[in-house]
Amino acid sequence: MARVVVDVMPKPEILDPQGKAVTGALGRLGFSGLSVRQGKRFELEIDGEVTDEVLAEVHRAAETLLANTVIETFSVHVGDAETAEVSG
Amino acid sequence: MARVVVDVMPKPEILDPQGKAVTGALGRLGFSGLSVRQGKRFELEIDGEVTDEVLAEVHRAAETLLANTVIETFSVHVGDAETAEVSG
Repeated sequence: MARVVVDVMPKPEILDPQGKAVTGALGRLGFSGLSVRQGKRFELEIDGEVTDEVLAEVHRAAETLLANTVIETFSVHVGDAETAEVSG
Repeated sequence: MARVVVDVMPKPEILDPQGKAVTGALGRLGFSGLSVRQGKRFELEIDGEVTDEVLAEVHRAAETLLANTVIETFSVHVGDAETAEVSG
């Protein structure tokens, strides 16, 4: 079992109403000086090893279904890029 | 301007209907042998530098608003953990 992560974010030139709502809500809660963009994170548990072929497949899946490439960009990471500073 | 990323995922013991739907849809498209869990990704653009204080603040924001810690876990990353293998 291997894990591949696909991150999907709205393109910079695309309005992000969800992110805007979150930014506003954080402001009202006293968290200021930041702006938020909201996207999606998909964690794919894959049977077997992560070969280049599997990665190409995941890339194709991301393009086909996970992201709407007209308005979103995506990136594919292997494993759980665990560079977490803090987690809860 | 610095970027901090907050990833929010449903806890492993929590049902994830969105992820299940995506897994099913991928199966019908011919992508098999994988199971997907879907979460959220927040990219926070922060004025100034990322100090420990700022990180603690982001952690508190994640706990308060970005994640529902009853059913979700979150992790806070500094910068854009750009370990992307492929991106589009």
